[in-house]
Amino acid sequence: MKRITPEQFRQEKNNDTYSQADENNIDETVLEIIKQVKKDGNEALYRFTEQFDGIKLKQLAVTKDEFIEAKGMISDEFKSALEEAKANITAFHEVQKEYSWFTDNTEGIMLGQKVTPLEKVGVYVPGGKASYPSTVLMNVIPAKLAGVKKIVITTPPDANGKISPEVLAAAEVVGVDEVYKLGGAQAIAALAYGTSSIEKVTKIVGPGNAFVARAKKWVYGDVAIDMIAGPSEICVVADESAPADYIAADLLSQAEHDEQSTSICITTSESLATEVQRAIDQQTTTLDRKDIIEKALTQNGRIIVVKNIQEAINLVNEIAPEHLQLMIENATEKVGDIQNAGAVFLGNFSPEPLGDYFAGPNHTLPTSGTAAFSSPLGVYDFMKKSSIIRYSRDSLLDASENIITLAKAEGLSAHANSIQIRKDNHNA
Amino acid sequence: MKRITPEQFRQEKNNDTYSQADENNIDETVLEIIKQVKKDGNEALYRFTEQFDGIKLKQLAVTKDEFIEAKGMISDEFKSALEEAKANITAFHEVQKEYSWFTDNTEGIMLGQKVTPLEKVGVYVPGGKASYPSTVLMNVIPAKLAGVKKIVITTPPDANGKISPEVLAAAEVVGVDEVYKLGGAQAIAALAYGTSSIEKVTKIVGPGNAFVARAKKWVYGDVAIDMIAGPSEICVVADESAPADYIAADLLSQAEHDEQSTSICITTSESLATEVQRAIDQQTTTLDRKDIIEKALTQNGRIIVVKNIQEAINLVNEIAPEHLQLMIENATEKVGDIQNAGAVFLGNFSPEPLGDYFAGPNHTLPTSGTAAFSSPLGVYDFMKKSSIIRYSRDSLLDASENIITLAKAEGLSAHANSIQIRKDNHNA
Repeated sequence: MKRITPEQFRQEKNNDTYSQADENNIDETVLEIIKQVKKDGNEALYRFTEQFDGIKLKQLAVTKDEFIEAKGMISDEFKSALEEAKANITAFHEVQKEYSWFTDNTEGIMLGQKVTPLEKVGVYVPGGKASYPSTVLMNVIPAKLAGVKKIVITTPPDANGKISPEVLAAAEVVGVDEVYKLGGAQAIAALAYGTSSIEKVTKIVGPGNAFVARAKKWVYGDVAIDMIAGPSEICVVADESAPADYIAADLLSQAEHDEQSTSICITTSESLATEVQRAIDQQTTTLDRKDIIEKALTQNGRIIVVKNIQEAINLVNEIAPEHLQLMIENATEKVGDIQNAGAVFLGNFSPEPLGDYFAGPNHTLPTSGTAAFSSPLGVYDFMKKSSIIRYSRDSLLDASENIITLAKAEGLSAHANSIQIRKDNHNA
Repeated sequence: MKRITPEQFRQEKNNDTYSQADENNIDETVLEIIKQVKKDGNEALYRFTEQFDGIKLKQLAVTKDEFIEAKGMISDEFKSALEEAKANITAFHEVQKEYSWFTDNTEGIMLGQKVTPLEKVGVYVPGGKASYPSTVLMNVIPAKLAGVKKIVITTPPDANGKISPEVLAAAEVVGVDEVYKLGGAQAIAALAYGTSSIEKVTKIVGPGNAFVARAKKWVYGDVAIDMIAGPSEICVVADESAPADYIAADLLSQAEHDEQSTSICITTSESLATEVQRAIDQQTTTLDRKDIIEKALTQNGRIIVVKNIQEAINLVNEIAPEHLQLMIENATEKVGDIQNAGAVFLGNFSPEPLGDYFAGPNHTLPTSGTAAFSSPLGVYDFMKKSSIIRYSRDSLLDASENIITLAKAEGLSAHANSIQIRKDNHNA
């Protein structure tokens, strides 16, 4: 962890000129995959799965037998943790449901907003060597609560053509309709445009590698997507009341995700900064993924000492971190000052992994500063709105002169005519 | 207007293989503009404005004097129509405001969702020869209601370096902070990345030509955007109770937008179909923009006769039209069956231009079938959410085994450690 001043930190941030428009080095590959899936359908999917995942599949859909086999492979402990997590996630997301509304039908005018669930959703779950059952829970539960009719998962198989039993168990617990053995840009193309085995969906959600993320960016507009997720980030704001070993453990938990992960600690205490650095060095040696952690911390691990909490909060709002831990006295009182953060964890006993798996709020959060304008994944991402407008004859005639004036100001005479013809007819 | 069967219509739709990924013919130009704006800042903005709008500007920001001059140029009639439209749009959007919520703090657990307005918004208003004051109202009012601190407009100047007085009047009525004389991809780049005169914004909204739309697609992710808008569409569902001349006028009002506009009439009545076709031919001759209308109707004007209303509604849900008019008996009773539409206009006296200008719901609506997954622009587009999580020591210890089990199932030992260290410390 590099210790720097707020000024140095801002300087580093300014020098980072990365932008979406620059990052088109894999576009050629991704666009070619999309094109081939659109042209050759399933055949392209089997071909790319052999090429990228090293397995020649006979069928894309996971069979009933494979689900049963998976069930036999998971522990009771895991099954029960899954069920409890599901209950918490469901309880939190229930509150996010949205409802249609209509204004009073007075003077012949009725206005409103109809809320409708999306029809079909595809969830991308990363796979291969890794297994992310929590991704299944966090993406499927809000879609189910919204009332989505069909939810499918695509996830890359391992070299034996298998899907992690934990992922299949999670898919069963939340009631997914189909699981397909399919990863990469080809999975995104299949979900976006459909093949004879995989139905085109309305929205694609879920995290993935650079190819998945880029494919999502390309199909965006033809189909809805959740977001373009970047590497994970944590920002811990701490005063001298926070235990250094807790802070270190939490910073390390983000750093293990991948080498691009960012772990930032902002503290008002010089001595705490020193203790955190020491604790990180100590704990790192004991962790399975210490190679990844060390690279991540060297690249994007920072400790910043600030004068007071207000300065820390200003910095947080500039960063707009995915995960923010406020390990300060009276943390809850500062929530109102936080403008930009994906999720805010309060106090010394709300570490970020609590939110990743269990507490209930979604773990799909805006990364790379997009918390300045994006929200956690929620039930609202699986519902959409339609405006409803009904005017009576009299109400329209009352409004007609105003509408005609505005239409004419924009030079749109056919718009004006649509009102005028009703007016004339009435006067006739 | 071409008369076709539902089967022919579906066939036409299937044959339309357009996708976002195909449309990269202007990417080179757009990416070069973005690059130059990032590199040269204001200098690039003046250069592109001279090149594309044919005017060498001295200053990008509209001055106070120009606002005063504009005020003197607009009619009282227009001013009053603007004020009434503003009142209606405000009243409707008020209902969309979202609020933070928190669950009860029982057993030491507090969860919630904090709702925060976006900080800065840029609104793109098309300009040049055209003038769209309604774009100003529809984009700025919801942002204001959300609590956005700074709202700026960019709009291309005419060949004399002027902005339409109606647009400036609308900007003043709704309280815009700045108006810049700037259009095209260069305006989007300036709003996304900032220059010394134009501050980087959090979100860019508003319609524009192909270059603007494509630039928005490229900066998406670095900054939020509303949507990638396509050509306007109307779908009128009518039974024999609907007057043919009203239907014709409404179909024509969409067709005048541009040559790519789509006007579809679905009716249960053979004779009404014939009458609508006749009324269209008759009315078209009287309209200012008849050349555009004729091209649009030839390309995308369709009349489809169906067996019954249910068949019409099925077709509507497949199309997911931007604007839907239900000109049928008991239209309101069918609202529940409409799954996919941007806005639904009920009865014979709710023509689409009523919604464009006046009724209150937003006229920025999802186009090109995206109503299947997108919503009208609303206050919710200018607010974002942060999750709030607070656990007490005891609550975390209760949950610890479950969290550790889930973290280990995903192979993330540093996640498990962040919980374990708190558990060990408590036991010590």
